[in-house]
Amino acid sequence: MAISLAQVAEAIGGNVHGDQDVLISGLATLNNAGPTQLSFLANPKYAAQLEHTRAAAVIIASSVLDRVPCNAIVVDQPYLAFARATKLFDNAPIADQKIHPSAIISSSAKIASRVTIGPNAVVGDDVVIGEGSWIGANVVISDYAVIGADCHIMPNVSIYHHVKLGDRVRIQSGATIGSDGFGFAPTKDGWLRINQLGSVSIGDDVDIGANTTIDRGALDDTVIENNVIIDNLVQIAHNVVIGEGSAIAGCTGIAGSSVIGKRCTLAGGVGVVGHISICDDVHVTGMTMVTRSITQPGSYSSGTPMSDTKTWKRNAVRFNQLNDFFKKK
Amino acid sequence: MAISLAQVAEAIGGNVHGDQDVLISGLATLNNAGPTQLSFLANPKYAAQLEHTRAAAVIIASSVLDRVPCNAIVVDQPYLAFARATKLFDNAPIADQKIHPSAIISSSAKIASRVTIGPNAVVGDDVVIGEGSWIGANVVISDYAVIGADCHIMPNVSIYHHVKLGDRVRIQSGATIGSDGFGFAPTKDGWLRINQLGSVSIGDDVDIGANTTIDRGALDDTVIENNVIIDNLVQIAHNVVIGEGSAIAGCTGIAGSSVIGKRCTLAGGVGVVGHISICDDVHVTGMTMVTRSITQPGSYSSGTPMSDTKTWKRNAVRFNQLNDFFKKK
Amino acid sequence: MAISLAQVAEAIGGNVHGDQDVLISGLATLNNAGPTQLSFLANPKYAAQLEHTRAAAVIIASSVLDRVPCNAIVVDQPYLAFARATKLFDNAPIADQKIHPSAIISSSAKIASRVTIGPNAVVGDDVVIGEGSWIGANVVISDYAVIGADCHIMPNVSIYHHVKLGDRVRIQSGATIGSDGFGFAPTKDGWLRINQLGSVSIGDDVDIGANTTIDRGALDDTVIENNVIIDNLVQIAHNVVIGEGSAIAGCTGIAGSSVIGKRCTLAGGVGVVGHISICDDVHVTGMTMVTRSITQPGSYSSGTPMSDTKTWKRNAVRFNQLNDFFKKK
Repeated sequence: MAISLAQVAEAIGGNVHGDQDVLISGLATLNNAGPTQLSFLANPKYAAQLEHTRAAAVIIASSVLDRVPCNAIVVDQPYLAFARATKLFDNAPIADQKIHPSAIISSSAKIASRVTIGPNAVVGDDVVIGEGSWIGANVVISDYAVIGADCHIMPNVSIYHHVKLGDRVRIQSGATIGSDGFGFAPTKDGWLRINQLGSVSIGDDVDIGANTTIDRGALDDTVIENNVIIDNLVQIAHNVVIGEGSAIAGCTGIAGSSVIGKRCTLAGGVGVVGHISICDDVHVTGMTMVTRSITQPGSYSSGTPMSDTKTWKRNAVRFNQLNDFFKKK
Repeated sequence: MAISLAQVAEAIGGNVHGDQDVLISGLATLNNAGPTQLSFLANPKYAAQLEHTRAAAVIIASSVLDRVPCNAIVVDQPYLAFARATKLFDNAPIADQKIHPSAIISSSAKIASRVTIGPNAVVGDDVVIGEGSWIGANVVISDYAVIGADCHIMPNVSIYHHVKLGDRVRIQSGATIGSDGFGFAPTKDGWLRINQLGSVSIGDDVDIGANTTIDRGALDDTVIENNVIIDNLVQIAHNVVIGEGSAIAGCTGIAGSSVIGKRCTLAGGVGVVGHISICDDVHVTGMTMVTRSITQPGSYSSGTPMSDTKTWKRNAVRFNQLNDFFKKK
Repeated sequence: MAISLAQVAEAIGGNVHGDQDVLISGLATLNNAGPTQLSFLANPKYAAQLEHTRAAAVIIASSVLDRVPCNAIVVDQPYLAFARATKLFDNAPIADQKIHPSAIISSSAKIASRVTIGPNAVVGDDVVIGEGSWIGANVVISDYAVIGADCHIMPNVSIYHHVKLGDRVRIQSGATIGSDGFGFAPTKDGWLRINQLGSVSIGDDVDIGANTTIDRGALDDTVIENNVIIDNLVQIAHNVVIGEGSAIAGCTGIAGSSVIGKRCTLAGGVGVVGHISICDDVHVTGMTMVTRSITQPGSYSSGTPMSDTKTWKRNAVRFNQLNDFFKKK
């Protein structure tokens, strides 16, 4: 798996400076790249890192070309060009477009052409799977779910009944899509479950991380719009809506019926209470507790800074005295 | 699947006002309900929302009957009546009371009547499964586990050896019940694992969310009492006890040997340290860090309020100066 | 399964005081132990608890021998001796060193001797499984993964392609190892996925908890060094390095490219931002947000103390006024 620098440049859209015939075997960081590898510099600020690289070539912006000690591919946006280059050197398994004989597939399921279904996968009644999609080993897709075209569902994912996925949706292992929302009515005899009659509707080009959970809606659907990216171990409760192009980092939880706008970014460990709205273009920093709606684009935070535990304890005790202290002054 | 309003009223326990023969095809919110759907108003405060509904009928308390523009079912507790109504219109798959030929079931397992076992499920030696229970596709139940009657274990759940479930327990996909507790003794050569000899004991009418984990006890069992409801991605460590009727929301973690009382509600993202007790009837708000026992019923909180990141940074810096500031004044 | 006290003492390295022939059927806490059970006292401070135990025998340090009302095994380190004793009384299923006929194993996989592979497990092309390892039911191991000797992979675990495990690695159910890191380049048309070309490299004697996720690296590997122990529902992002002997408690998330030193302990619910370093021998308390590198060993914290919600609200409001208040004074 080695291709010429010229071929790489053509695939990622750049111009070669130096030897266009040098063979590239893979990608690596500037520090680790060896003499057959390609590297990149995304931020011109770190141009000094170029000087000692042993890479065969680097992907760079033209502004740092004079700092480069090796071959180069000059592009407008080096990070984007690097992202494209990763597609040339991936060693992940490739779909074989076969249905493994151990898979259990309902006779009423509609499986399009070029579909791959792995060993021991289970596909329920009336499920629809679009052209070119890949269902991994031990995946379970329940009745009436609809999987679009060119989706990739990795091993051990659970997709509940009536869940709808658009095209090119990728779901990492262990994720659960369409589980019952956490809805119960209190009664004098304890909790009475509210059957969750909605489903989950996922758009095109959505990425869902490992062991993430997305609950089905109570009446309407939980909605993940196009091009949303969701990291690992994220909890999305019933009837949440996540707007197009938003990114949700790991360990974040979004409670029921909250609406996240378009192009929002929620950093890791954020908690969003239920029944609020976040407008478009909001960034929330890590571990923030979002307890009210946000109506203005911008960055939002909560929490306290880390210090050594001894110092922290002294200050934390004062937190619980703040109101009295303010009133005395 | 359409039934008359009279039939709905009988099932949920209410009185029809208007046309009792109108056919109801499903449930929807007041805003979204169409002319064959039933809606509801739980809180009389929002009675104005009734006025523009296009629903065929609404479930309401008698106090708002004069605001209703359509047919109605009058009940004492509309939310509870709505919860009952959801059971009439669920479109989830129904257990077929068959054991799929691809399931791998030990010859020593004791499977009662009317049990459903899905494709590729694995049932170990001496497992007991009670009448009417449904084991989903790709579920693994290890040796000597006991599943009560009318349980529903959804696809890809893992239940370890000797775990005991009561009746009517529901476990969403991806949950792990009975994994080894996180117990290790430090030695000069590193961590030495403490084999976890207890198990998990789960009562009746317990609901467990997707991808939630409940560890087995070190010596005694981890205990989940009757009618506890647990949301997604919750971590319950070894030897925790959760009292009857408590509710644990998503992304909460409860460390080893802590005891949660009855009828407690822990909101999302709460953390409870190990070896403490929370008494009955305690509510803990979202993302609170519970670092000590709670002996009085009531509501408890920690954390700081969200603000824009610029403002937050200025205030957060001051947090680390609090003790000095207090001492100077 | 009963063995004499003498046999227990020999296995755990201690001296019997009293009847060395008494038969021990199991382990229990001091409070719960019955007349055929063995208990232990780890901390001499609680020696009073010894007085009313009904245990057949206790594991103790010599300093408390005069407080013991029953037989005893005297050891230097009671907790360590107890950890060893748990290995004598475990009732977990035992590997049968057979490959279940329902497992789907690639003909190019290299399976060593004494390997156990459970029902419906899936083993991909060119996978290597070392001597004595146990692959549980419904586990999926993708192409080119390498599993060392004497590993134990529990049911429903997903291991992606090219992941490497050392010897004696234990992975609890539902964990995902080697999922794609959360790497995307922003473009004018939305997020463009960066194919994750690295893998995950796990050392010897590593324990990984239930439903934990460890992402593969972008270019280099994500690295978990020897004797690291990781609890449930932990998220470890791409290119994280965790140093030898560190312990990561449940619900913790570590963002991309951060490096954790050796012998660190991160308590539950901690969040570590990306691209920072934590030096050796650091302890981080529960739910702390680690937003910068730590260069000195010691204990670190963030957050605010819990109080009743009414009091908390009054103080929390003041947090957002801190900077103004400080400037006025």
